[in-house]
Amino acid sequence: MKQEHLSLLCDFYELTMAGGYFKTGLYEKYTYFDLYFRTLPDGGGFAVAAGLEQLVEFIEALRFDADDLRYLHGLGLFDEDFLAYLRDFRFTGDIYAVPEGTPVFPGEPLLTVRARAIEAQLIETFALLTINHQSLIATKANRIYRAAQGRPVFEFGARRAQGSDAAVLGARAAYIGGCSGTTCTLTNHLYGVPTTGAMAHSWVQLFPSEYEAFKAYCELYPENATLLVDTYNTLGSGVPNAIAVFKEVLLPRGITEFSIRLDSGDIAYLSKMARKMLDAAGLRSCKIVASNSLDEYLIRDLLMQGAQLDAFCVGERLITSKSSPVFDGVYKLVADESDTGEIIPRIKVSENTVKIPTPHFKRVYRLFDRKSGKAIADLLTIHDEVLDDTQTLELFDPIDTWKTKLVTDFSARELLVPIFKNGQLVYKLPAVSDIRKYCLDQLGTLWDEVTRFEHPHNYYVDLSRRLWELRHELLVSRT
Amino acid sequence: MKQEHLSLLCDFYELTMAGGYFKTGLYEKYTYFDLYFRTLPDGGGFAVAAGLEQLVEFIEALRFDADDLRYLHGLGLFDEDFLAYLRDFRFTGDIYAVPEGTPVFPGEPLLTVRARAIEAQLIETFALLTINHQSLIATKANRIYRAAQGRPVFEFGARRAQGSDAAVLGARAAYIGGCSGTTCTLTNHLYGVPTTGAMAHSWVQLFPSEYEAFKAYCELYPENATLLVDTYNTLGSGVPNAIAVFKEVLLPRGITEFSIRLDSGDIAYLSKMARKMLDAAGLRSCKIVASNSLDEYLIRDLLMQGAQLDAFCVGERLITSKSSPVFDGVYKLVADESDTGEIIPRIKVSENTVKIPTPHFKRVYRLFDRKSGKAIADLLTIHDEVLDDTQTLELFDPIDTWKTKLVTDFSARELLVPIFKNGQLVYKLPAVSDIRKYCLDQLGTLWDEVTRFEHPHNYYVDLSRRLWELRHELLVSRT
Repeated sequence: MKQEHLSLLCDFYELTMAGGYFKTGLYEKYTYFDLYFRTLPDGGGFAVAAGLEQLVEFIEALRFDADDLRYLHGLGLFDEDFLAYLRDFRFTGDIYAVPEGTPVFPGEPLLTVRARAIEAQLIETFALLTINHQSLIATKANRIYRAAQGRPVFEFGARRAQGSDAAVLGARAAYIGGCSGTTCTLTNHLYGVPTTGAMAHSWVQLFPSEYEAFKAYCELYPENATLLVDTYNTLGSGVPNAIAVFKEVLLPRGITEFSIRLDSGDIAYLSKMARKMLDAAGLRSCKIVASNSLDEYLIRDLLMQGAQLDAFCVGERLITSKSSPVFDGVYKLVADESDTGEIIPRIKVSENTVKIPTPHFKRVYRLFDRKSGKAIADLLTIHDEVLDDTQTLELFDPIDTWKTKLVTDFSARELLVPIFKNGQLVYKLPAVSDIRKYCLDQLGTLWDEVTRFEHPHNYYVDLSRRLWELRHELLVSRT
Repeated sequence: MKQEHLSLLCDFYELTMAGGYFKTGLYEKYTYFDLYFRTLPDGGGFAVAAGLEQLVEFIEALRFDADDLRYLHGLGLFDEDFLAYLRDFRFTGDIYAVPEGTPVFPGEPLLTVRARAIEAQLIETFALLTINHQSLIATKANRIYRAAQGRPVFEFGARRAQGSDAAVLGARAAYIGGCSGTTCTLTNHLYGVPTTGAMAHSWVQLFPSEYEAFKAYCELYPENATLLVDTYNTLGSGVPNAIAVFKEVLLPRGITEFSIRLDSGDIAYLSKMARKMLDAAGLRSCKIVASNSLDEYLIRDLLMQGAQLDAFCVGERLITSKSSPVFDGVYKLVADESDTGEIIPRIKVSENTVKIPTPHFKRVYRLFDRKSGKAIADLLTIHDEVLDDTQTLELFDPIDTWKTKLVTDFSARELLVPIFKNGQLVYKLPAVSDIRKYCLDQLGTLWDEVTRFEHPHNYYVDLSRRLWELRHELLVSRT
């Protein structure tokens, strides 16, 4: 939705640089940019890539229309030649990306762009924005999904989201990461993400009594009715009224799927008491749903304490990734091409070693153990290297290079797939439900040690010998 | 922008409740909802209200078009009568709101809605979303603005924002809170917020040398050129090359306004060394700008250490309010009307006392000391109370009611102003630059003790005697 007017959603320096590349002739130069991130949110062991579909839509719609050009003209910074160039501007480059839903690790490209300097630069801001945002939320959602141990998790956070897109696309990303649905109606409409939602406290307050509010609701929406039981007194009135209404209105119709929602008080205690009351009333099929300041940590603790909960509604702590609200993806020049088409690796030195990008146009292989199916390591190679997975492979730590590991009986899969070729979309965007399935399937390829919430095993992202040596040479020659 | 398709940006329960109100006849009932927040981000002393303009746009565009209705029909939950009602739906209620840019405090309404139940409910999600989001960012921006002690702060965070609106409208809110500009081009275009931005590291890398990159830039954009000096070696090459280019290209043209940007390394140390180098070269007018993981805490520390900085570019820690990324506004029913038009206060009890909304249709007065012009307290009253600011007023703490304070020689200003009356917009939306001026002006009415970053003075938000007694009675009669 709404992508058609976003061409100016870029940092202003993309335009000043674009104007400069145009005037100096540099804009014809082919460049290679990698989008990668450096640190994992919440100190986790992996992230979930997401946000690619919106980048594709952005690029397909990327135009500077009359209104944009009038605005740019009015700034008085750009001359007519450049504005004429922008009027006919299209993205004509190549893009490779990790499919949405893939578990990913720091330092490896999630996206590689090969395009003329000006084109690569004009998509930078949006590429970072969409992939940073949705990867952040998908990663957080997956943590919460894992904490819930098979119980459904619903995304409830639109009202606390950081703007409309954060609500709508955050819910999309949350679904990719493992949520079962969202309360965001527009996300259901646009992306087919299952939606859910029953009543607020105001519903209960507007009826003469809680009982009448519950009864009216169940008569109107008998399927999967969820009654909010904490408006007045959870155990004193909410649960008894819900039991009465379920028995009077739903059971006689043969309906046994319904639930109550706890939204305040001590959820562990209340859920146990409510469970007993429901069971004593013969309503064993009634589910108990919890909301209120939940995240992976509280869900884990509640379940450890034997809370009787069947589903979780998670709001602000998911939709903003509250405990870790930034995904730190960056977009760095790693190579350009000479006039004869030779690819020349580029490096930017930093005093902070982790801030040095891995140079060159690269491939990313994920190595799987053939016996267990588990992912062993990711390996970055130069673009023209071919990995022979019939031979024993020696991996080594790119910092402590004396730490080595021999890998045998493995299969290798390339993570980066072609998305655009010469500006043409060559990738079929999967349905969001398929992305979610793929994500949960790939989660199964990770060792438990990598999926731990805190202090997980550090998954290996290694460089091929040739790539490591190239990087080393560039650093030595620069400093 | 882009508001026209957002009618379905609501929690799904707004629609199930709306359908229920319609079927039960409750939808004709007039209700009063307050939007207020409970806790201040970052443990600060006040927040800055923002986001109202987008709510106005949302309400003005609120329609269910053919596509929306087809979608709702397809869900199989709603009958034709209700869908026909939605086809002609318009918001016809009244809205009162605190103007954007106003310092606000927990527990007081930022927005009061009087509307038929169904109308009040259908704007809930978006009202919360926009006011929560923009108030969060305006509040954070104001903290950073204060830390910078008069030096300009620029918003740089689009790439780390939580979605497109978070970037575009976050930049708008940051400007309201005190930023001097943004790198977000679209925010400049749509809202006239000043924009800024020069070059990324890739610009420097794509030229044969740093010197040539700087020279090309200054020749193209000689006005207010800002050179990024840390691509290779800040003090070893970046600053010397910048000095050379300023002298060769800009000074001969009579241009003395230019700057360098430090984006890595120890900013305090590098800024002092760079200042010396610039001064020694006779470039005293050259400003030094810092970026890289800044927020109010780091800026305060850098300035305490004598860092030679003239401006700050703040990214992810502002655009996500990283240290406190949720503004916890809620939207609660506080009254409804009987068939005869009598306003009946409503309350929702909670075990957690701060979660109990203050009932009834209310006014909010801010009391100013006539001598100092400073704000003394905010006072919530019942809608029909008139505050006489020629008489001595006794304030009392709504929890520790024995704590009282006599106020004399004060003036009272109502904070809630009419925005919609019977669905008609009756408020002239101010220009964003006027909102910013108003915000910084109002900041001057707060005692220093309230503006402290940590453990500030707890500003008084009190209830009138009548309102306090009403609340007490409702609580006693409920429990």
